[in-house]
Amino acid sequence: MEIQIAVAKTNKYATSESGDTLEIIERPNGGVSAVLSDGQSSGKGAKIISTMVVRKVITLLAEGVRDGAAARAASDYLFTERNGKVSACLNILSADLQSGTIVITRNNPTPIFIAQGDRIECLSGESSPIGTSRNIRPTISELPLKVGTTIVMYTDGLVYAGDRIGQSLDICTLLSSLLEDQNPPTQEIANSLLAEAIRMDQGRPNDDMSVVVLRVLAKDIGEIRRMYVSLPVSPIHIPYHEENKI
Amino acid sequence: MEIQIAVAKTNKYATSESGDTLEIIERPNGGVSAVLSDGQSSGKGAKIISTMVVRKVITLLAEGVRDGAAARAASDYLFTERNGKVSACLNILSADLQSGTIVITRNNPTPIFIAQGDRIECLSGESSPIGTSRNIRPTISELPLKVGTTIVMYTDGLVYAGDRIGQSLDICTLLSSLLEDQNPPTQEIANSLLAEAIRMDQGRPNDDMSVVVLRVLAKDIGEIRRMYVSLPVSPIHIPYHEENKI
Repeated sequence: MEIQIAVAKTNKYATSESGDTLEIIERPNGGVSAVLSDGQSSGKGAKIISTMVVRKVITLLAEGVRDGAAARAASDYLFTERNGKVSACLNILSADLQSGTIVITRNNPTPIFIAQGDRIECLSGESSPIGTSRNIRPTISELPLKVGTTIVMYTDGLVYAGDRIGQSLDICTLLSSLLEDQNPPTQEIANSLLAEAIRMDQGRPNDDMSVVVLRVLAKDIGEIRRMYVSLPVSPIHIPYHEENKI
Repeated sequence: MEIQIAVAKTNKYATSESGDTLEIIERPNGGVSAVLSDGQSSGKGAKIISTMVVRKVITLLAEGVRDGAAARAASDYLFTERNGKVSACLNILSADLQSGTIVITRNNPTPIFIAQGDRIECLSGESSPIGTSRNIRPTISELPLKVGTTIVMYTDGLVYAGDRIGQSLDICTLLSSLLEDQNPPTQEIANSLLAEAIRMDQGRPNDDMSVVVLRVLAKDIGEIRRMYVSLPVSPIHIPYHEENKI
């Protein structure tokens, strides 16, 4: 079987930096974790916060710390660093080969969708962002690492997409129609969800947007791991950009 | 323009764990770094070493430490932890948006290829692995972040592929024929190089093998970042694997 994680991510319109940070890291006892944080507000300030949070979490996960403990540590750390004045949303999505489970750690009111076969379930219980008080605890859900499972998590930029035109994105329906459609590539699912959210904001995202899709598939592609990152860069943000002309 | 990094990675035949570790991380001042380490020998012991090295480097890079300083710190750290008895190869490949350059940091005798237009250059100067003595310094090369650049780095599993049958992989020729072939996707280049190395080892890799390909392309896909990870998992390595049957 194969575990696939795909991410699609964009900035708020006309800002050069996204306040969302996402890193994917190998777990020291087997498996992989995606760590997603959305810093309060947007732009440079939000980026500093979300980077600080994600960096703390991946450092701890790499040392073998459990996901829930890492989320609590990140909360206490942010609270201490910023005197409780700044909040951040945090999600950790792990495929843990040691326990044979998918572990979903939420400090984020934004829902997470779990599709298994024809059923799509929504984790939308209350969950508070980190950093604003002591003793903030994450909501943790654990499910078996089973073929046919799809998990979708995202930041609130997708929740509020379409607000300006009085519409909103129905991720559940969209996901179910995507999954019915002959097993599209995982990256395709992430791309489609993000594209739909951007369309709802009429091509000008009202906030930073990130979508993460994790799938467990039966497909056996042998013993090869793959990883891919693509990063759009505006040449004007690069020193000596004259050299970039072709 | 767009920066793309693709990785393909496999284990030595009949070992469950690769001694190579690779992580890709966002740079705090813009850009992305791929950190690759190959621990001495193979299997569990090598994995512990390469994980330790990569974890140290990504933690430092995330704090804004320069690549060369991070490599030196990782060397001193490994030397201290293992009393100079264990070595590891380390490569850091960064697209640094702050300096507008690609930075290649090598503590690895394995060559690195740089293709620009029709020219393929090979960085194969002497370079020693880290961890075995004090004052080990990396070899650093810096080139402008220019459209049309392709960098290929890999671990020694590819260098010795084919040894058993008295052949060896000519990465330079292979890369040049791949690049001539109408701009294949970056992931395709990494996959092809790895597939060819596995073929030379008659389907049974003689060592852990990892290939990293970085490309700078003119393509403009808008402001969307993408990331993708796929991880093959043998169900027998997972607790409660009965549940994985479909």
